Amino acid sequence: MFYHDNDLQYPVEVEEPDPRFAKMLQEAIGGVEGEMRVCLQYLFQSWGVPDEHEEYRKLLLETATEEIGHIEMLATAVTKNLEGAPTQLKDEMTDDPVINATMSGMMPRQYLSSGLKAMPVDANGNPFNASYVVASGNLAADLYANVMAESTGRLLATRLYEMTDDPGMKDMLAYLIARDTMHQNQFLKAVQSLGDPEDPHDHLPIPDSFPDAKELEEYNYSFLSTMREKADYEAPWTEGMSVDGEGEFSLLHELDLEGGERSVPKANPETHNEVKEKGED
Amino acid sequence: MFYHDNDLQYPVEVEEPDPRFAKMLQEAIGGVEGEMRVCLQYLFQSWGVPDEHEEYRKLLLETATEEIGHIEMLATAVTKNLEGAPTQLKDEMTDDPVINATMSGMMPRQYLSSGLKAMPVDANGNPFNASYVVASGNLAADLYANVMAESTGRLLATRLYEMTDDPGMKDMLAYLIARDTMHQNQFLKAVQSLGDPEDPHDHLPIPDSFPDAKELEEYNYSFLSTMREKADYEAPWTEGMSVDGEGEFSLLHELDLEGGERSVPKANPETHNEVKEKGED
Amino acid sequence: MFYHDNDLQYPVEVEEPDPRFAKMLQEAIGGVEGEMRVCLQYLFQSWGVPDEHEEYRKLLLETATEEIGHIEMLATAVTKNLEGAPTQLKDEMTDDPVINATMSGMMPRQYLSSGLKAMPVDANGNPFNASYVVASGNLAADLYANVMAESTGRLLATRLYEMTDDPGMKDMLAYLIARDTMHQNQFLKAVQSLGDPEDPHDHLPIPDSFPDAKELEEYNYSFLSTMREKADYEAPWTEGMSVDGEGEFSLLHELDLEGGERSVPKANPETHNEVKEKGED
Amino acid sequence: MFYHDNDLQYPVEVEEPDPRFAKMLQEAIGGVEGEMRVCLQYLFQSWGVPDEHEEYRKLLLETATEEIGHIEMLATAVTKNLEGAPTQLKDEMTDDPVINATMSGMMPRQYLSSGLKAMPVDANGNPFNASYVVASGNLAADLYANVMAESTGRLLATRLYEMTDDPGMKDMLAYLIARDTMHQNQFLKAVQSLGDPEDPHDHLPIPDSFPDAKELEEYNYSFLSTMREKADYEAPWTEGMSVDGEGEFSLLHELDLEGGERSVPKANPETHNEVKEKGED
Amino acid sequence: MFYHDNDLQYPVEVEEPDPRFAKMLQEAIGGVEGEMRVCLQYLFQSWGVPDEHEEYRKLLLETATEEIGHIEMLATAVTKNLEGAPTQLKDEMTDDPVINATMSGMMPRQYLSSGLKAMPVDANGNPFNASYVVASGNLAADLYANVMAESTGRLLATRLYEMTDDPGMKDMLAYLIARDTMHQNQFLKAVQSLGDPEDPHDHLPIPDSFPDAKELEEYNYSFLSTMREKADYEAPWTEGMSVDGEGEFSLLHELDLEGGERSVPKANPETHNEVKEKGED
Amino acid sequence: MFYHDNDLQYPVEVEEPDPRFAKMLQEAIGGVEGEMRVCLQYLFQSWGVPDEHEEYRKLLLETATEEIGHIEMLATAVTKNLEGAPTQLKDEMTDDPVINATMSGMMPRQYLSSGLKAMPVDANGNPFNASYVVASGNLAADLYANVMAESTGRLLATRLYEMTDDPGMKDMLAYLIARDTMHQNQFLKAVQSLGDPEDPHDHLPIPDSFPDAKELEEYNYSFLSTMREKADYEAPWTEGMSVDGEGEFSLLHELDLEGGERSVPKANPETHNEVKEKGED
Repeated sequence: MFYHDNDLQYPVEVEEPDPRFAKMLQEAIGGVEGEMRVCLQYLFQSWGVPDEHEEYRKLLLETATEEIGHIEMLATAVTKNLEGAPTQLKDEMTDDPVINATMSGMMPRQYLSSGLKAMPVDANGNPFNASYVVASGNLAADLYANVMAESTGRLLATRLYEMTDDPGMKDMLAYLIARDTMHQNQFLKAVQSLGDPEDPHDHLPIPDSFPDAKELEEYNYSFLSTMREKADYEAPWTEGMSVDGEGEFSLLHELDLEGGERSVPKANPETHNEVKEKGED
Repeated sequence: MFYHDNDLQYPVEVEEPDPRFAKMLQEAIGGVEGEMRVCLQYLFQSWGVPDEHEEYRKLLLETATEEIGHIEMLATAVTKNLEGAPTQLKDEMTDDPVINATMSGMMPRQYLSSGLKAMPVDANGNPFNASYVVASGNLAADLYANVMAESTGRLLATRLYEMTDDPGMKDMLAYLIARDTMHQNQFLKAVQSLGDPEDPHDHLPIPDSFPDAKELEEYNYSFLSTMREKADYEAPWTEGMSVDGEGEFSLLHELDLEGGERSVPKANPETHNEVKEKGED
Repeated sequence: MFYHDNDLQYPVEVEEPDPRFAKMLQEAIGGVEGEMRVCLQYLFQSWGVPDEHEEYRKLLLETATEEIGHIEMLATAVTKNLEGAPTQLKDEMTDDPVINATMSGMMPRQYLSSGLKAMPVDANGNPFNASYVVASGNLAADLYANVMAESTGRLLATRLYEMTDDPGMKDMLAYLIARDTMHQNQFLKAVQSLGDPEDPHDHLPIPDSFPDAKELEEYNYSFLSTMREKADYEAPWTEGMSVDGEGEFSLLHELDLEGGERSVPKANPETHNEVKEKGED
Repeated sequence: MFYHDNDLQYPVEVEEPDPRFAKMLQEAIGGVEGEMRVCLQYLFQSWGVPDEHEEYRKLLLETATEEIGHIEMLATAVTKNLEGAPTQLKDEMTDDPVINATMSGMMPRQYLSSGLKAMPVDANGNPFNASYVVASGNLAADLYANVMAESTGRLLATRLYEMTDDPGMKDMLAYLIARDTMHQNQFLKAVQSLGDPEDPHDHLPIPDSFPDAKELEEYNYSFLSTMREKADYEAPWTEGMSVDGEGEFSLLHELDLEGGERSVPKANPETHNEVKEKGED
Repeated sequence: MFYHDNDLQYPVEVEEPDPRFAKMLQEAIGGVEGEMRVCLQYLFQSWGVPDEHEEYRKLLLETATEEIGHIEMLATAVTKNLEGAPTQLKDEMTDDPVINATMSGMMPRQYLSSGLKAMPVDANGNPFNASYVVASGNLAADLYANVMAESTGRLLATRLYEMTDDPGMKDMLAYLIARDTMHQNQFLKAVQSLGDPEDPHDHLPIPDSFPDAKELEEYNYSFLSTMREKADYEAPWTEGMSVDGEGEFSLLHELDLEGGERSVPKANPETHNEVKEKGED
Repeated sequence: MFYHDNDLQYPVEVEEPDPRFAKMLQEAIGGVEGEMRVCLQYLFQSWGVPDEHEEYRKLLLETATEEIGHIEMLATAVTKNLEGAPTQLKDEMTDDPVINATMSGMMPRQYLSSGLKAMPVDANGNPFNASYVVASGNLAADLYANVMAESTGRLLATRLYEMTDDPGMKDMLAYLIARDTMHQNQFLKAVQSLGDPEDPHDHLPIPDSFPDAKELEEYNYSFLSTMREKADYEAPWTEGMSVDGEGEFSLLHELDLEGGERSVPKANPETHNEVKEKGED
């Protein structure tokens, strides 16, 4: 179960409130690259890890709980950036071009629906959607999902960092960027720790429990070219040892595949799919 | 631009149609782990790669085009599994327990909305949603997103493989599993080929263009424990060299953070947030 | 504004309640082919028609109001089909195979969320979504949207008709099918009444207000073949007069287009899109 | 910020795993009546309460943190109900009617996407959507939203209670029902504590800060009848003192309103809304 | 069934069209606090009320029908605010700062998709979603949902009122605010009229039909503190009589709960969840 | 299966990048009127057409493949319009009103989530949703859906054309408008080619396979008036031959329908729907 106190993980100060930056920050709360996603992702992953892998369950729960505090920091940042925001469309818009631009660039629902507070939505105004949450039941797949989430999360944080000149906001974002650096490293370390400790790729391909004998050997290490015109070429993924160490890359062209012609059976009459043939009554 | 012919990449045969398996197959078409997602993901990623990285743009477009053909194969498989499906709820349900179970387990809209055809939805019936598509503009982040997509995609394919006894379906799935093996390998190879060819982790942390000097050094390689009670412990992510080779892992407890108390300013009166204080009129 | 009374448009009787049919009926309420969609579509279309086209505004509002009553009928039908529905999963499921199949085939939220009532969702359980509603501001486009909505609506109703043996349900569906017949006819009549009364296609192409002089004449009546291999062929849409009477159909192959090579500029550094080149520090 | 330990709030035991009940339990996790909604709702509400109302901020944060633990309990319950679930559709379905019914009644993605674990979705399979979360910035409105959420939440829990015979599940649900009893009471107490402590309705109407002088007195306490035929009638809401103590209920009929005829201006030509008039070229 | 005429409930006049206010008004049409939600909510609730509670069924249907007219008024207001809206992005944007700000602040789809008309979307541009609609089958829960909906609805209307200086819009909003005042009062009156007429809280807790004997008495009236450090405190919800009159409030700390340690069983091999152990082949 | 090359169908040039136009163009990519919708719609329709209707299957697949290339063109146009876009909110916003307006009018996620690239979303920022895709299994219904899609698609393209002065963008849009002209014509030609080649309406009503004898003759050609007050009137849809040639239009008023009073049964006690009656304990 969970506990709280009244402190923030790191200070959240805003020198000059900026309602347009308040909109941008929403991406880091409710966006697909945001903190609600990673928080819920690590919670659901952790809750599914069986007792025998307790070390990984703990890894995930520690960080999930950290992320709740990140949402809290960002919610605070949004509220502070909305302090003193204009709440009136001006009749005579030319009077104040700054207010004009601000009103035009604000997120309408941050005033209309939340009274100038943070919302569980992204910067385009879409509500957070739990289909962003990846918790597959397979640790290796989940850990890659986490590396990816922390990569797009850190990318977002650096973009937000570029967008503001407010020293308080830059400081808060530097903290979040540092945490994302760690999270990328810890989850990569964790995925490499699966299987043989000497072999960082021993967990590949994912899932590694599907029997090798059932793989189709003609297709599992050949790069497929789909260019209209067949042509040879070389790339790191057309020759040499595969990353999982179990095959040799090669090049194959789609024209050499032999799936045969598609055929589609007629559906039964209860579907009412059929149309009159020409000349039929 | 794009072209087509009338052939499949690989044969799609169904010996015994199974309407319940037709529902399961929808996950591989319109699910978050499915082919529509990877197809659109690689297309949008490829379309955004600048000319100077043409090799990666090509990598992505080749595979994107391959994936359209996978959706086609799965759509064919769904239609064939729905051949002869029951389209009547029986008054006297006990007459045929097999039909009863089948009707109960079918996806209603595969009959009602598509006339026993494949739909762009997942196995729970949710329509495909493009928020699944990751195309961040940063190649390293995108390639990890692809490794992750191919991991959950292959995991899904192996689960579908377990679920059917139909030899045609098992064969088609073995092909898709083999392709996912390759795709995991090719995208990992690609991400490792970024930066120094001798250093598979040279692209870390993502994005690698944020200046090191702006990182907060106290926080970017320490694992944060959020246990209610502070306690020391060791794990691969609490000590030793970080994966990106730029730091040393350590352990930090949340109680040692110093963010200070949260404070929230009052909103302006136009929000109508305020409530009467006790005794106020 | 709107008024109501306590009557139904047409009787809704259920002889043998069937919880699985109650699920199917949801498609006709909250599905993309359902009554909520057409009701809201005709309301929003009607509310946008300017005074000068009052005849069409009335057409749309008359039918929109009729459709509210159809939702009412279907909601009643759902409730009656859920009468006496099982609300307990049985410990020993073999005891009653009929209850087993029924419980398995019911829509969970019809019990859990609505207490055995109709919901604004489709047969797969997806909530109604207003992106189904087409109201473009252009009457001709809207009227085709209505013909299409009534086509898939009538198709759905005939499929539901096949699925039940209950005489009350068959009778109610026959009424709804008849209304959809009329609605297809009235909206096609309306679209043909636009422009020259002698020319049923005078409204084409939609919108007809874009100046002919700005159309690219090489492309607006040629059917484009995208087969990998160029090949001539004939079809009703490759030769002869176009339906709008303004051009001559012809056949063109994608290989003869001349768009030139795609080129993508590099984004600016604030995006943090860039990756290290091989050998770069 | 937040902390965790490894314990549950209350024991979660399952005697007889039941995959169909695992599907039903999803409603209490990711449904509109579920724990993710109340958890996030109370978090976002609390984070927006200004310092001057610290007592309410604390009320909300205490309970928000409790709710994370409820999601955890339910996630555990789902996993335990899926233990030993069938993962194969049988060729010969008649062999085992229990497995048949179970496979038909399971949620497909609980196997395909999560490997027999809990997911952030409802019982119909819809992903949790943050548009369920109400945090308006106005305490009185938010507290009623909480009373409502706890009412539908407790209703859901009692329906789940009826649906299972498993003693462990019944015990866990009795705990959640008791907590919902408390939460309904505490939030009603809180809303009644706003304003004059002697007047439980002093916070009405919400928001109470809109000036009385601007209300239209003809309309703010009259019940509006929209029956097609005007008729007098009596009900608790057509006569007597209003609940907020500021008006007298009365009955008004829609036919007595005087809004005048609707009129819609023509849009400008750039919209391409216009259609040809009859006879126009 | 339903009827209509050509009049509005109340006049809708716009002196100075304002495309940015047209965007804001969308929240009152298609937003979670808007009129489509309450309209559909009261319709579905009413359609589910059994004959024995006809008085409440009528209450709900009267107001549902009123709300269709509110959507109509707001749709008219949107169209009038979009009259003369700019439909061209200017090459030289500095030429007219007012047009610049207006174009930047408009909702794109109000021009692109609807030709300057109202749409069934909210002010952030999200389509209306029927998951907003609460119709639980239990009257007391539904009536609280209505009080809540009218609270956030009136809050939204007052915020819109602050945002405009147009006298016509202020007048229309004053009407809608007055109606929301009544609706809050009528639904609270209705919920208080359930059960004992002398006891306004006799309907609590919701649902009141769950047997008292099955409640866990230790937990149903104790406020649960989740602070990291246990500490005593007093609030209206930690002592005194509960609102439902059936218990005594008390304070309990999460550390005193005894749920025991979480445990998660291993899933079966067909899930392909397992990962290689260190040193395993 | 599918193939690609590196060329565009038609040149995509941008003289003056315009980030606000980049937002508008998103509607043509991921909007309900956009190219992703038609592309997927024609793919799924084609994949479902049985072998016996190969001519139509080919029609659909040819055009589906063309549409992938249209998405590609639009994605290129978006990227080029975002070249040089501002990525910093200015402290002193008055410094540059053009940058101010641009920043306010840009789509936040085109910078934050995609690094100034195209996204699979519409101009309001909503992700593409596959519920837009219509593939009903019935050719006539599908072909009308395509006419409708091409009508709203061409309408959108003409509106975008009005909005820009950039010669490159106007040229690209003229190409897309021309293609939509053809697509409207080809799909109308195709629907008219169904059934009797002499009778362009022989496919009506859709589906035409429902037996005439089961239609309710009183209702299938009468226009239903729902005006509160019964009144006679004439319109093209109240008299004369129906479009399908199978009936005679007439006028009917809702007051003449005889559906009888609605009645709703009580639900069983396990729903916990019931409320205490007045005076009940």
